[in-house]
This record gives sequence, structure tokens and C-alpha cells, in this order.
Amino acid sequence: MDFNENLNKKIETVNNALKKYLAPKYPERLYEAMGYSVFAGGKRLRPVLMLSACEAVGGKAEDAIPFACAMEMIHTYSLIHDDLPAMDNDDFRRGKPTCHKAFDEALAILAGDGLLTYAFEIMLNTICEKRDIRYAKAASYIAKNSGTCGMLVGQVVDVESEGVAIDDKTLMYIHDNKTGGLIKASLVAGAIIGGATEDEIGDFEKIGYNIGIAFQIKDDILDVTSTSEILGKPVFSDEKNNKSTYVTLHGIENAQEDFKTLSEGAVKMIENFGAKGEFLKEYADTLINRIN
Amino acid sequence: MDFNENLNKKIETVNNALKKYLAPKYPERLYEAMGYSVFAGGKRLRPVLMLSACEAVGGKAEDAIPFACAMEMIHTYSLIHDDLPAMDNDDFRRGKPTCHKAFDEALAILAGDGLLTYAFEIMLNTICEKRDIRYAKAASYIAKNSGTCGMLVGQVVDVESEGVAIDDKTLMYIHDNKTGGLIKASLVAGAIIGGATEDEIGDFEKIGYNIGIAFQIKDDILDVTSTSEILGKPVFSDEKNNKSTYVTLHGIENAQEDFKTLSEGAVKMIENFGAKGEFLKEYADTLINRIN
Repeated sequence: MDFNENLNKKIETVNNALKKYLAPKYPERLYEAMGYSVFAGGKRLRPVLMLSACEAVGGKAEDAIPFACAMEMIHTYSLIHDDLPAMDNDDFRRGKPTCHKAFDEALAILAGDGLLTYAFEIMLNTICEKRDIRYAKAASYIAKNSGTCGMLVGQVVDVESEGVAIDDKTLMYIHDNKTGGLIKASLVAGAIIGGATEDEIGDFEKIGYNIGIAFQIKDDILDVTSTSEILGKPVFSDEKNNKSTYVTLHGIENAQEDFKTLSEGAVKMIENFGAKGEFLKEYADTLINRIN
Repeated sequence: MDFNENLNKKIETVNNALKKYLAPKYPERLYEAMGYSVFAGGKRLRPVLMLSACEAVGGKAEDAIPFACAMEMIHTYSLIHDDLPAMDNDDFRRGKPTCHKAFDEALAILAGDGLLTYAFEIMLNTICEKRDIRYAKAASYIAKNSGTCGMLVGQVVDVESEGVAIDDKTLMYIHDNKTGGLIKASLVAGAIIGGATEDEIGDFEKIGYNIGIAFQIKDDILDVTSTSEILGKPVFSDEKNNKSTYVTLHGIENAQEDFKTLSEGAVKMIENFGAKGEFLKEYADTLINRIN
């Protein structure tokens, strides 16, 4: 199976599982709103990372499917709440009306709450079914990195920093937590489910850190080097919003160099997993070379 | 130890544990907002139910402390989000400014998200530490009853029913899920942690159903029979908001009779647990006889 076939198969498997979890039920509007946002065109970055980390340590990707879906639900809940009027007040995401625009604000808040709770329900059901401590460890890691040691605190500091000049330390805190939290959690949880050793788990934490920060630096770079046609959203938006980014703090050249160092570091660490890590390595390459 | 001593000890133990979980950390404003709402005067109804159900089946209450704190965090998150402008738009709760009034709307959304995620983090850490399937089962039951089979869907239907005449079936759905979800979850999770048999778990589901519905009928009754001084909030608020309640649908006499039947049924089922269930029985009595 070549890389693209493998990638598409992974995405399709996750999408099919998500469709089952989100099949219409009473109250219909809730499932509509949750499904609307989950199927609004995400690339399934985090699920794919999770499945391939699971394989990279010798595990079976199918064992990680429920957790991969849970991760996508957590990611989607965060987008729904971030888009709310009291937060970023975004009317569109990926060219489609945001959840509170397509439905209403109350339902958007509840759909976000619903996806977050449902994600933990799915993981806990899996823990009860499998009766294997690995799943509990993976879920515990995901909870930490979605909340008090990851995405949520990154978002809090990001919201607090709006319109304020921030230093490099704060920017790195935001990037490492807000973006890096779920990326790290996807890789580490996948590795734990796949039966990783403690050392391998440590490796994936580092890989996740590198990919998370590199991913965000790339966003900052594209915002000032791309066009709105290629990017599918306005360029120079950070400048317009007076937002401190890796580029404004370090300059475009340093940003590009640090991006390269972090990316190459991640790829090098992935190479240690040999043939089993080949897909993950190629996937990391696509993230590095992405143009939007 | 007499009943009140025992009750106060339970509440104090839970409060001390909650204080530890919510001790100030970076980002400080998040912990401030979460702590503000958790310590805004709740009676710890759900934690007390959980600890006493645990004891009623012969378990040690201390084993259920982390889960009791998690349950209070889930309850508090739901209050913070329910109070938001897009939902009930309440400026005060228990005489204090609501979270979005004391802080701001973005932080209130995030504090709610934070408490919900933190609750699962605490439960999952406990599962990993104890390595006992009981904790996983209890957490799984809590997830269901907070989300897709409980509080969340009850709230969705409640919001959808605003200003609309609803039938008895819908009202019972709202009460059983929105209020009943967490009450059932507290009792059942406590019983599971305490080592309950399948039959005992079934008993606690029924006890939880009865207490949840009775609790809500009592709310509806007090709204039309009490005074705002005793209740600490405006009376006849349901009528003013054109809200269908158990009283508007069934009349005050039927409401009082059904309340009595449900309450007595709950107490009778608790009596089956003998001396170990004595505290829970007395606690249920205080809920039945509450005047606000």
C-alpha cells in the first residue's frame, strides 16, 4: 500500500467510526450540531498521528480507533468554543458557517460540551471493555493535555494575551499547549495503546513537542508569505490583529530556520522506529511541506 | 457520630480535597474563576450522595473522594455554562455574581470547559493509580449520565423547550436527565466504588431516579408555595417565564402526592441497606423536607 492509499484508508476508517458515534439520536438538533462541526472538512491530523504512532511501536491501528475519534471530538469541541462570539467571534471556518452561526450560540456551547463529554465516554467505555491499563494511561494523558496541562491553559493564556505585546516565553507556552497539547496527546496516546516502552513514550513526547511548535511556526510563516487564494483564509491577519507571532518576535529568517531545525529533529527521531515508523515519517513530511 | 456531625465531616472532607485540586496555579485567572464557582456556596449534594452510597454498600467513603470532587466539578461546569448570556443569562446565583459576571464571558466558557476536563483527568488518574476496574466502571457511568444519556441532553431539550408548551413526557425527560443524571451518577458511582453487586447498582439507579424527579418536583412546588425570603430567589418565576412545570402540568395537589410517593419509595429502597444505609436515609429525609 503506498503512502496516499494508506493515508486515505486511515482517514476513511476514522470517518466511518465517527459517523457511527454521531448517528442521529434524540435530541436530533444536538447530534446535528455535533456532526456538522465534526464533518466540516477537518483533515483528521490528530487521528492520523495517533494511528501511525500506534503502528510505529508495533501496535495495531484498529486498537486506537475509538481514541482517535475521541481525540477528533476534543479537537472539534475546542474549535466550536474558540469560534464563539465571546472568544474569537468567527463566522466562518474552512469556508463554512461556524457552529453558532449554522445553529445558535446556546446549541454551539452545548455541542462543544457534548463532544468533550462524549469523547471521555468513548474512552472510558473502551477502558471497561478492554480491561487493559494501557487505555487508562492513554486517556489520562489525553485528559491532561486537553486541559490543565495543555490545550485549555494554552487557550486561556492566548485569550488573555489578545492585543497585548507578549514575550517569547509566553508565545512558546501558548504554542506548546494550545496547538502542541493535542498533537503530543495524539502521538503519545497512540504509542501507549500500541504498547510503547517508557523510553518510546518519552520519544513521542519530544516528537510531539517538535511537530506542535513547528506546525504553529509554519502557520505564522504562511500568514506573511502565502496568498489568501492558496491559504483559503485572509493573509497578514496576525499583523492586522496586532498579534505577536513567532515571525513578529524572531523575524521571518529565524522563523524559517527554527522551523527547519524542529521539523528535521522530529523526522530524525521518527526514523529510529525503522520501517514501522515509515508512514509516520512520510506523514510528518507532508506536514512540513504543507502550503496551507 | 450523629447525623449532622457526619454530614459536616463529609462536606469538609470534600471541600478540603477540592481546595487542593484547585490551588492557585498558572494561569492564575483560570484557577481563580474555577475556584470562584466551585466555592460559591454549593451544598455538596452530589458528593454527599456519592460518599453515602459508597458506605451504604459497605465501602469506605475515602475511596470515593476524588470522584466526589470530580462530580462537584462537573456540576459546577454545568451551572457556569447554563448561566451564560446565550443560555439562561443569569447575573446572580446564590446571591453572588455568576462566573461570567465576576470575570468575563470568555473566561467563564473556559472555566466550565476546564472543570469538565479536570474532572475526567482526576477520575482517570485514580483509575491508573488504583488499577481496579470499579473506578473505570464508575467513571464510565458518570460520563454517560453527564452527557449523551443524562445532564447534557436534558439541558438541550430544556433550552429547546423554552417558551414552548411541552407535554408530560418531555418534562419527565428533562427532569430525569438534567437534574436526575448527576444525582443517579453520584449514587451509582459511589455504590460501584464501594463494591456494590449488580443488583445493588440497579437499586441505586432506581433510588437516583426517584430522588432526581422528587427533587425537581419539590423545586416546582416551592416556586409556587414558598416566599422569596425563604427561597432566596424570586418565587412564581416559572409562571413569569411561561415555563411548563410539574405543577402547571399536573396541578399542585398531584405534584405533592407524586412527590410523596417518589420520596417514600426512595427511602424504602434505602432502608434495604440496613444500618450501613442509615446516614443516606437521613440525608434523603433532609432533601425531602427541605424548604429551600
